[in-house]
Amino acid sequence: MPEYKAPVRDMQFVLHEVFNAESIWAKLGLDEVNRELADAILDEAAKISETLLSPLNRSGDEEGVSWNDTVVTTPKGYPEAFKELAEGGWGALAGDPEYGGQVIPKMLVLMFEEMSYGSNIALGLYLSLTSGAALAMANHASEELKQKYLPNMYAGKWAGSMCLTEAHAGTDLGMIRTKAEPQADGSYSITGNKIFITGGEHDLTENIIHLVLAKLPDAPAGSKGISLFLVPKFHVNDDGSLGERNGVSCGSVEHKMGIHASATCVLNFDDAKGYLVGEVNKGLMAMFTMMNYERLSVGVQGLGLAAASYNGALDYARERLQSRSPAGPQNADGPADPIIVHPDVRRMLLTQKAYVEAGRAFSVFVGQQLDTAKFGEGEEQVRAAGLVELLTPIAKAFLTDKGLECTVIGQQCFGGHGYVREWGMEQYVRDVRIAQIYEGTNGIQALDLMGRKVAANGGKNMAVLIQEMRDYAASATTAGMDEFTAPLKKACDSLESLTQDVLAAAKDDPHAVGAASVEYLNAAGYTIYAYMWARMAEVALQNSDDAFYSAKLHTARFYMTRLLPQLDAMAASVRAGSDVLMALPEEAF
Amino acid sequence: MPEYKAPVRDMQFVLHEVFNAESIWAKLGLDEVNRELADAILDEAAKISETLLSPLNRSGDEEGVSWNDTVVTTPKGYPEAFKELAEGGWGALAGDPEYGGQVIPKMLVLMFEEMSYGSNIALGLYLSLTSGAALAMANHASEELKQKYLPNMYAGKWAGSMCLTEAHAGTDLGMIRTKAEPQADGSYSITGNKIFITGGEHDLTENIIHLVLAKLPDAPAGSKGISLFLVPKFHVNDDGSLGERNGVSCGSVEHKMGIHASATCVLNFDDAKGYLVGEVNKGLMAMFTMMNYERLSVGVQGLGLAAASYNGALDYARERLQSRSPAGPQNADGPADPIIVHPDVRRMLLTQKAYVEAGRAFSVFVGQQLDTAKFGEGEEQVRAAGLVELLTPIAKAFLTDKGLECTVIGQQCFGGHGYVREWGMEQYVRDVRIAQIYEGTNGIQALDLMGRKVAANGGKNMAVLIQEMRDYAASATTAGMDEFTAPLKKACDSLESLTQDVLAAAKDDPHAVGAASVEYLNAAGYTIYAYMWARMAEVALQNSDDAFYSAKLHTARFYMTRLLPQLDAMAASVRAGSDVLMALPEEAF
Repeated sequence: MPEYKAPVRDMQFVLHEVFNAESIWAKLGLDEVNRELADAILDEAAKISETLLSPLNRSGDEEGVSWNDTVVTTPKGYPEAFKELAEGGWGALAGDPEYGGQVIPKMLVLMFEEMSYGSNIALGLYLSLTSGAALAMANHASEELKQKYLPNMYAGKWAGSMCLTEAHAGTDLGMIRTKAEPQADGSYSITGNKIFITGGEHDLTENIIHLVLAKLPDAPAGSKGISLFLVPKFHVNDDGSLGERNGVSCGSVEHKMGIHASATCVLNFDDAKGYLVGEVNKGLMAMFTMMNYERLSVGVQGLGLAAASYNGALDYARERLQSRSPAGPQNADGPADPIIVHPDVRRMLLTQKAYVEAGRAFSVFVGQQLDTAKFGEGEEQVRAAGLVELLTPIAKAFLTDKGLECTVIGQQCFGGHGYVREWGMEQYVRDVRIAQIYEGTNGIQALDLMGRKVAANGGKNMAVLIQEMRDYAASATTAGMDEFTAPLKKACDSLESLTQDVLAAAKDDPHAVGAASVEYLNAAGYTIYAYMWARMAEVALQNSDDAFYSAKLHTARFYMTRLLPQLDAMAASVRAGSDVLMALPEEAF
Repeated sequence: MPEYKAPVRDMQFVLHEVFNAESIWAKLGLDEVNRELADAILDEAAKISETLLSPLNRSGDEEGVSWNDTVVTTPKGYPEAFKELAEGGWGALAGDPEYGGQVIPKMLVLMFEEMSYGSNIALGLYLSLTSGAALAMANHASEELKQKYLPNMYAGKWAGSMCLTEAHAGTDLGMIRTKAEPQADGSYSITGNKIFITGGEHDLTENIIHLVLAKLPDAPAGSKGISLFLVPKFHVNDDGSLGERNGVSCGSVEHKMGIHASATCVLNFDDAKGYLVGEVNKGLMAMFTMMNYERLSVGVQGLGLAAASYNGALDYARERLQSRSPAGPQNADGPADPIIVHPDVRRMLLTQKAYVEAGRAFSVFVGQQLDTAKFGEGEEQVRAAGLVELLTPIAKAFLTDKGLECTVIGQQCFGGHGYVREWGMEQYVRDVRIAQIYEGTNGIQALDLMGRKVAANGGKNMAVLIQEMRDYAASATTAGMDEFTAPLKKACDSLESLTQDVLAAAKDDPHAVGAASVEYLNAAGYTIYAYMWARMAEVALQNSDDAFYSAKLHTARFYMTRLLPQLDAMAASVRAGSDVLMALPEEAF
């Protein structure tokens, strides 16, 4: 397996040079966070990713988790590594400071996430599910629950899980059957079966705090009758010590394509004691706090694995000697040239590089909106919150789709060795594949974008985004920027007219939104990446003597000329309309 | 795992209705092969695929092959199944009749291959490697070798393998180090190490006949000094009985992403006795006979697994109840609608269907050229041979790229269940992935196409293909065909002008060919699929009352409007030229 190398320099470039994060943080009143602290965090995150997480990645894949009579055992080294992560404070980064959390901006937390996923997604998941559960609790749980549970979750002494899916209810959570019966003491008795619970059971922590969707006996049908409950694996006594086992147990673990070291559990709740989080029948809304957090985080999984795969492919392309350059020998003393001399190998590497670096900038852009929505004020805060809504499904789906594409390319660079487990490149493909599926499949993300985030408000937030990109293109007057702002402007025009066309079609056609959704999301993704590359190119143009910046400029050019044309294909596909999908009778498929 | 259902009706449609195969066979003098025989073969192939091969597919994946001190054991049931396949005569289909082969046209053999790969690629590989080795021998080996080995290979009593790759020499076979020392008895002593040898060792047959590339002591450097040798695992006595073990043994097997039941071996040759096949130093040419056969066959692996995945996804989409149609409940009595009501699920299914059915027609089109090149005469034969050269890399790469795309889509239709091994959809993804890599990576196929098959002859064979497609479009005057011939004509224009642009750029730019190659191959693939869909649409228009034909028409429309626009994106990418790939210094990546 390629050794994980954290792309710290590239992260600093995005954070400090492209986004000028320090000034954003100052403006948001996050005075304790500055460039120095950010760099220290990046360095420390790089160290644990490279030395603690990465060495366990392939062994964890080979060994996997094992299940025996409700007990789940993680691979060798995982409990110790998780403990070290927890003690390093990595579970508290974005937590509520009242309960032991740190106030680290999301823009920076995302980079830790990229590194932890890129070096060992399976292990990283246990931590990020815990952070996500803590986030939902911080926003919706009672003071009593927060005091009792949050400090140990932030400290990584206890882990968290989110329990939504049932065998017959995945996308359609309105169909869940898990029941919550009110008890005399104000708690609830939870009974039902959940599947696909990441980190639902394991041996990493002494307790696991499950957030569970269930229905009260008198709840309305469908998604408006769902409530959220906190169900600890072990009861917690008033003095904070652990009590007896609660009525929740692991019935089995799934055998999966990848993320073998992550326990994907069947959880059986049998008269388990649970505590209401948020309001009755408003559980889905409370859970969405967690899901939005997780969705961006899942996008970053696509980014992290793509970056790791690029890193491996690049090293291999520099070392593997095979055939000669079409321009004549470049390594005349060797038996053959390194394969990086071949145009098509460069095309593969540049495709990875262009998607990875734009993806990193994009995730930080979303992080900026999240931070502004959380710490900002007034109109700026409202605007950022609107952008978060709009951008979350794009980040989840586009980053993970590109994650698969990039890890497949990285594997391809290795030829036959890419297919052999020992080399590690195929694991990236298997591991990243889940990110397109869980937390709402990418098709569901596209529906969320096109339906709830665009059509439902007449494209208001999309108009804000397009305006920002146009304003940028108009204001970027550094010499040489035309090459990058011209395609960006054209992309904005395409995306705008595509948005209008779909909105118009949706007036009379109930299928217009669903028929357009996936390609529309892609069109938005390609446009946003053009925006990111234009911004990176501008910084590079101001520093073009240096090889690092010159590489940014070349990659921006590659993106605009060789990848952005996909936007037109997506737009053409959307404009084909819904009839071509709906006219075929179901039985004729 | 979805039960494999052989798409016999669709195969008959392509063979009899679209290509009118019976008339082609009659014209080629293959009088014994008619529609009745073809249908009987399809039915029998469907039966063994569904009842013999498919039931072993998932168990074979879970169990895998095992290696212990040179002995390779295949999964439970594999030796018996292979024996039954062999005894059914499936190894002799396209063999030389002088040695026990049958004269079944490639157009038909391909359909058996699609079924065997679609139901169990790992098991199918043992047979097709044997057929490929037999083909190379039938074309290049001495009469003595043919008489001694071919009958038992056709009968599946002995298997075959092709031994090319060495650890340091994959794409660049000129670098191989395996040595062949001439012996007094006219044989050669072969010494060296080969890797990635599919079926290099196993327990399916009593003997294995290896075709091995090696170099004579005085051979010229590079690819012009390679000779081909036949090296049996067990010596064969003059009476046909097996003698002692030869000096070849299996050093280990690879642990791979997929095709777990296929033994991918390290083979060590240590003073093994080998026999020259073909002429000294012309081994690569002889091996190409086998490789071209294998390359089309590998393309069909992409097709077969895509078709199997479509079949599974379609069943699931009809059964899985989740959410309601945007047009209101379609299954009002049930708790939710089947997911096939959703536009985006239909988009996924139609994408699979459009690629699979065009791919099947395309493979038969290539089969037609192979049959004409083999059995035809005069100009027609020469023209077909030229088209085979041109189409082989497209078939290998485009069919397998679409194979990955389609199996990923099929997995996606299953949501979380798609990621779980038990459901079988992820195995298709893992299994098909190798087909983009082996027998020359798809990048190498694209270079072969753009360099050797297009640029090297000024685009002559490509012009023949484009002319055929244009002639067809001009002659297809059935009412309603404009909808399909108009985009086909436009695609032909695009492909032609793209070809001319690349040829022009290649005059001064050594990197032009490599920079254009992959997208160019894709552009050709999309155009050819438009041709296939136009031909299928024409048959459908003449039978449009029936649901079967109406589905063809709908799918053709879907292809032209929603998938063919990719062609423009590919063309734009090619026209970006090579500078954008080559200008970045290697150290700046």
